Amino acid sequence: MSTIPADEGGKTSKEPRTERGRRTLRKLLDAAAIEFGEKGFHEASISGITRRAGTALGSFYTYFDSKDEIFRALVSDMSGMVRARSAEEVKPGMNALEVETAALTGFLKFAVEHKEIYRIVDEAEFVDPDSYREHYVSTAKRILSRLENGMASGEFRPGMGEAQAWALMGMYVFLGMRYAIMGEDRPVEEMVAVARGILENGIRPE
Amino acid sequence: MSTIPADEGGKTSKEPRTERGRRTLRKLLDAAAIEFGEKGFHEASISGITRRAGTALGSFYTYFDSKDEIFRALVSDMSGMVRARSAEEVKPGMNALEVETAALTGFLKFAVEHKEIYRIVDEAEFVDPDSYREHYVSTAKRILSRLENGMASGEFRPGMGEAQAWALMGMYVFLGMRYAIMGEDRPVEEMVAVARGILENGIRPE
Repeated sequence: MSTIPADEGGKTSKEPRTERGRRTLRKLLDAAAIEFGEKGFHEASISGITRRAGTALGSFYTYFDSKDEIFRALVSDMSGMVRARSAEEVKPGMNALEVETAALTGFLKFAVEHKEIYRIVDEAEFVDPDSYREHYVSTAKRILSRLENGMASGEFRPGMGEAQAWALMGMYVFLGMRYAIMGEDRPVEEMVAVARGILENGIRPE
Repeated sequence: MSTIPADEGGKTSKEPRTERGRRTLRKLLDAAAIEFGEKGFHEASISGITRRAGTALGSFYTYFDSKDEIFRALVSDMSGMVRARSAEEVKPGMNALEVETAALTGFLKFAVEHKEIYRIVDEAEFVDPDSYREHYVSTAKRILSRLENGMASGEFRPGMGEAQAWALMGMYVFLGMRYAIMGEDRPVEEMVAVARGILENGIRPE
């Protein structure tokens, strides 16, 4: 995760002002992902996070007031990392369908490498419902904006909106859950091909 | 929920032998759905369940040994009720696409009437991971079996399998989450039309 700067997400009330501070914050968020992912929110502890991060307890309180606060920052950070990872896969000159599948590729690669994202986001439903909602609302908005580009260029069917964005998001999340999280990993390319087939033709014969 | 017999799901180690026993078990499961849905697993209590059910504490222990056990039975019961509700919507003579959208209609109607299903199934990921997995694995199997029927009749694209079933399940679950759970209810028919459009044409122009 260290390639993604903390300001892609991971908002904290106290922004680091130095490069060293940004590195410490990044370490804390990466450590929090492992700690919450392995132990769950209730069993996770601030000392467990700082131990994994190799930072002093004081560093934690420089950036966060509580376990709740770093959890909230972590959900936002993971949203930001998924967004950045998806954007990385999108190349100039791609058509609308290629952009859609590239963004999905980025999400699935992230999920394979950071399987803890599912447990963390899912636990947010109970620990911090606002973060949970915000994660999905902002992801759906990005999908909708890609759909709108494709509709504007005539590559996608007109009249689609937020509901189609939520439908596609569910398809992507469940493909990742089944094949990146629930064992029996499949290559990302295979999962993307499944989604692409549905995006191109639905489930009817071509 | 009282129209669905307990043996559609809600397995317990001690099956009721009388009609009265079946009614008591049904009352306990319905009460558990409300108790777990409102309070979450950790705050929910056996006495809260029996109070809502209007049964004696002893009746609870006739069927369940613990809060964990009724929670597990409840997840399985809800799977069974979704299955029954979907089956109700499917009528003889429907083509494969009509069967698919009818089954989705049944699921969404159930979700609108029993919004607690999302919280309960989602919490199972943490409280009882086997139930969580079993809920989705068995739902995906039903979707796959419908896809297989449509492939056999030539109405659906050949070569689809478990992955497509998971993709469709995700689409259905997220449409329900957005429009049955997260406020701003939309009519079930509108959600079904969104899914149907994607099943028929993907996101490309017709």
